[in-house]
Amino acid sequence: MRVRLTIEYDGTAYAGWQRQENALAVQQVVEEALRKLTGHEHTITGASRTDAGVHAFGQIAHFDAIGRIPAEKYAYALNTVLPDDVRIRASQEVPDDFHARFSAKGKWYRYCIYNDAHASAILRNTHAHVMYPLDIEAMRREAAYAVGTHDFNAFAASGSVVKDTVRTIYSVEVEKHEQKVEIHVKGNGFLYNMVRILAGTLIGVGTGKLEEGAIRRALETGSRLDLGMTAPARGLTLMEVYYNA
Amino acid sequence: MRVRLTIEYDGTAYAGWQRQENALAVQQVVEEALRKLTGHEHTITGASRTDAGVHAFGQIAHFDAIGRIPAEKYAYALNTVLPDDVRIRASQEVPDDFHARFSAKGKWYRYCIYNDAHASAILRNTHAHVMYPLDIEAMRREAAYAVGTHDFNAFAASGSVVKDTVRTIYSVEVEKHEQKVEIHVKGNGFLYNMVRILAGTLIGVGTGKLEEGAIRRALETGSRLDLGMTAPARGLTLMEVYYNA
Repeated sequence: MRVRLTIEYDGTAYAGWQRQENALAVQQVVEEALRKLTGHEHTITGASRTDAGVHAFGQIAHFDAIGRIPAEKYAYALNTVLPDDVRIRASQEVPDDFHARFSAKGKWYRYCIYNDAHASAILRNTHAHVMYPLDIEAMRREAAYAVGTHDFNAFAASGSVVKDTVRTIYSVEVEKHEQKVEIHVKGNGFLYNMVRILAGTLIGVGTGKLEEGAIRRALETGSRLDLGMTAPARGLTLMEVYYNA
Repeated sequence: MRVRLTIEYDGTAYAGWQRQENALAVQQVVEEALRKLTGHEHTITGASRTDAGVHAFGQIAHFDAIGRIPAEKYAYALNTVLPDDVRIRASQEVPDDFHARFSAKGKWYRYCIYNDAHASAILRNTHAHVMYPLDIEAMRREAAYAVGTHDFNAFAASGSVVKDTVRTIYSVEVEKHEQKVEIHVKGNGFLYNMVRILAGTLIGVGTGKLEEGAIRRALETGSRLDLGMTAPARGLTLMEVYYNA
C-alpha cells in the first residue's frame, strides 16, 4: 500500500528535507518515526528537496507501507513520535503509481519578509528582515515580469546542472499586512534557489537598490548578475504541491 | 533622563518578564544588555509581568539612563547585544514621572489558537492547539458577556490577593483565518491569568464542553468553577500598552 503524507515543518533546526551525512534532515526524522512506529525500515520520497532553514506547510511525501496501520491513521500515529517541529497534517492511501515528486504538477511557495527598522523577535525564524521601506507597488510591477513561460536560466543557482530551464510561473502576488510582506509564487516547477532569487530581486527593487525591469533584462540576457541577492532561507515556506485530482 | 522602551519577545525560552532566581527572565536579559552597552547597572520596570512562555509584541518598560546615549539610539544599540528572541522596537525619552506600569491606562492582549486535527509545527510556540472544531459564532456570543465593567473575581487565579477585582473590558473580538483563531482582548486592566482563563472559557464554549453563558454565570456567582481551563501560556501575546497621549 502506497501512502501519501502531507507534512508541515519548521525547518530552523534541520539541514533541509533530504537525508544526508552528518546533519539531521526532515526526511530522516520522518523515516525514524516510521521505524519506531512499525519496527520496519521505510524510505520516503518528498516532492521538494527544501534547503536548510526552509519551512514547509504542505510538503508531500510517499512511501510503501509495511504493516497493517490504515493509511489515514499514519498522521495521528506518527505525530505521537515526531518532534513537535514536524507534524503530519494528513495521510491517505494513493495508487501505486503515485510519486510525490514526479506526479507533481506545480507548487506554491511563500516568501515572508518583516519590513521594519528592527527585526522581529517572534517571527525571526520565518521572516527575512528588511530594514529599508519596501515599495510594494514597485515589487508588484516587477513581479509581473516573472509570470508566464520563460527560460529561467538566469535564476538557476550557479553550478546548477539542470538542462531544461524553461518553467511556467502562474502568478506572483505581493501582500502587505502591517510590517509583514508576503510574496506568493505559484508555478509548474522551480529551479534550485529560484524562489529565493526571485524574492531577493523583488526586495532589491522594493528598496530601490535594483532598477525596475531587472527580471525582464535577466530573462533576455540569461545573466544571474542582472538579478538580486538570494534571499535568506528562513523566509521561504513550501505551501502546497499540486497534483492532478 | 528617563527612557521608554517598546519590547518584543518570543517568551518560549524565558521564565517570564520579571527577574527571578534560578531562571532567566526577559527583564534580566535587557538589564544585562544595558550593562554591556553602558557599563552601568540599570533597573528596568515593565508594564506587565508576563508569565513564562507568554510573548510580547509591545511590552513597555522604562529606566533612568546613566550615560550619554541619546534616547532614540537605545533601540539600535541594545539590538546589537540582545539575543534575537528579544528586540527593542523603539526607544524614546519620556518625562521623569512616566511609569511603565502605573501610567498605563489599558492593554491589548491577543490569544492565538491553531484549530485543526493536528497541531502546527511552524506555529507551535505561539498558538495553543485545539483539535475539536470551534464554533466561532458561539465564542463571539460568549465573549460579549465579558465586555463592560464587571467584578472579575471569578477570573482571578486561585491564591490571588488582589483586593479590587473590578475591571473594564473594552472589547473581545474573535477572528478566524483558516486554521488560525485569534482572540483580541482590550481593557483597562487584567487580573493575573484573566486573559488565559477568558481564552480557556471561550475555547470550552467553542468546542461545546462548556454551556453558553458560562461567563454571565461566573460574573454573578464569582466562582472560578463556572469558567473553563486556563489556556496555555504560549498562545498569549501582550500586543500593546495604552497611555494617555
